[in-house]
Amino acid sequence: MCPEVEVKVACKDLNELEKRLMKQGAMVVGEALQEDVYFAHPCRDFGTSDEALRIRRSGEEWRLTYKGPKLDRETKTREELEIVIDPEVRTILEKLGFEEVMSIHKRRKILTLGEIEVSLDRVEGLGDFVELEYKGESVEIGRRSIFQAMERLGLEGSERRSYLELLLNIKIEKTGPL
Amino acid sequence: MCPEVEVKVACKDLNELEKRLMKQGAMVVGEALQEDVYFAHPCRDFGTSDEALRIRRSGEEWRLTYKGPKLDRETKTREELEIVIDPEVRTILEKLGFEEVMSIHKRRKILTLGEIEVSLDRVEGLGDFVELEYKGESVEIGRRSIFQAMERLGLEGSERRSYLELLLNIKIEKTGPL
Repeated sequence: MCPEVEVKVACKDLNELEKRLMKQGAMVVGEALQEDVYFAHPCRDFGTSDEALRIRRSGEEWRLTYKGPKLDRETKTREELEIVIDPEVRTILEKLGFEEVMSIHKRRKILTLGEIEVSLDRVEGLGDFVELEYKGESVEIGRRSIFQAMERLGLEGSERRSYLELLLNIKIEKTGPL
Repeated sequence: MCPEVEVKVACKDLNELEKRLMKQGAMVVGEALQEDVYFAHPCRDFGTSDEALRIRRSGEEWRLTYKGPKLDRETKTREELEIVIDPEVRTILEKLGFEEVMSIHKRRKILTLGEIEVSLDRVEGLGDFVELEYKGESVEIGRRSIFQAMERLGLEGSERRSYLELLLNIKIEKTGPL
């Protein structure tokens, strides 16, 4: 059970940002199309409880992820549990009353910069973002490392809303309240 | 999604039954200690809906199983979904509000007799049982094969209650309603 120390920022030019990252010694470690399916709980409002349950398909691998409520106001730090699964877990979840809320498609390029994992995300229907996630043990060191990296990369602000929340907002604007 | 065609019978002498099975050509295919943990749904009464959610540890392997309601009055035929899992799925289930109801420990010896899988179960706190499960495709052929095998083996009756239900009944008798 590791708290996730992570910051997300909207980014207008991911190519330019990638160049800056490479100059600072970052390495590309992977790139894949990802499909994320988010589920609603049969009797708990994840919007209110600030939790999420997701099945991610990344290439040929499937993972189930539980995200607990965010722990502070600045970052997206939260409890996260993730396991590799058989895709049929989805059918079991549906039998138990979990329902798909939304699926999100993105192309994600992953780089490492020291202990920070940088994701360059092109999200269908939403735009481009960069996520910085600390992969070490200490939450405190993680926060410091991420803020220092953001400064060096010229990144500002923090989008605390998930892609799911952002896409649901767009849907609400287009169609009225769900 | 396969319907499970299965009959369970209480048995006073599993050693004698095993001898009869071997004489009819059965083969022992495995024996293991199994621990089954059953969960309550956060907002659905599985007792009423006749469903079950279980994590089984069998030796070093963990499986998650969903069982749907029984489909007839004679057998334990029901929809069953089972996948191999990472044991950490339990923590995710608990985060989502699923709670352990009971754990069941048994020693299970598995034999095959044609298309029927026979389990000789020594269940802690409950006694000895034999389960016959048809492993072919057709539910109709499955029912016929199982009833024929029971006749040949001198088995009578059908315990439709699960080990979980039987153990919960004992608990209620001992302690009064839960």
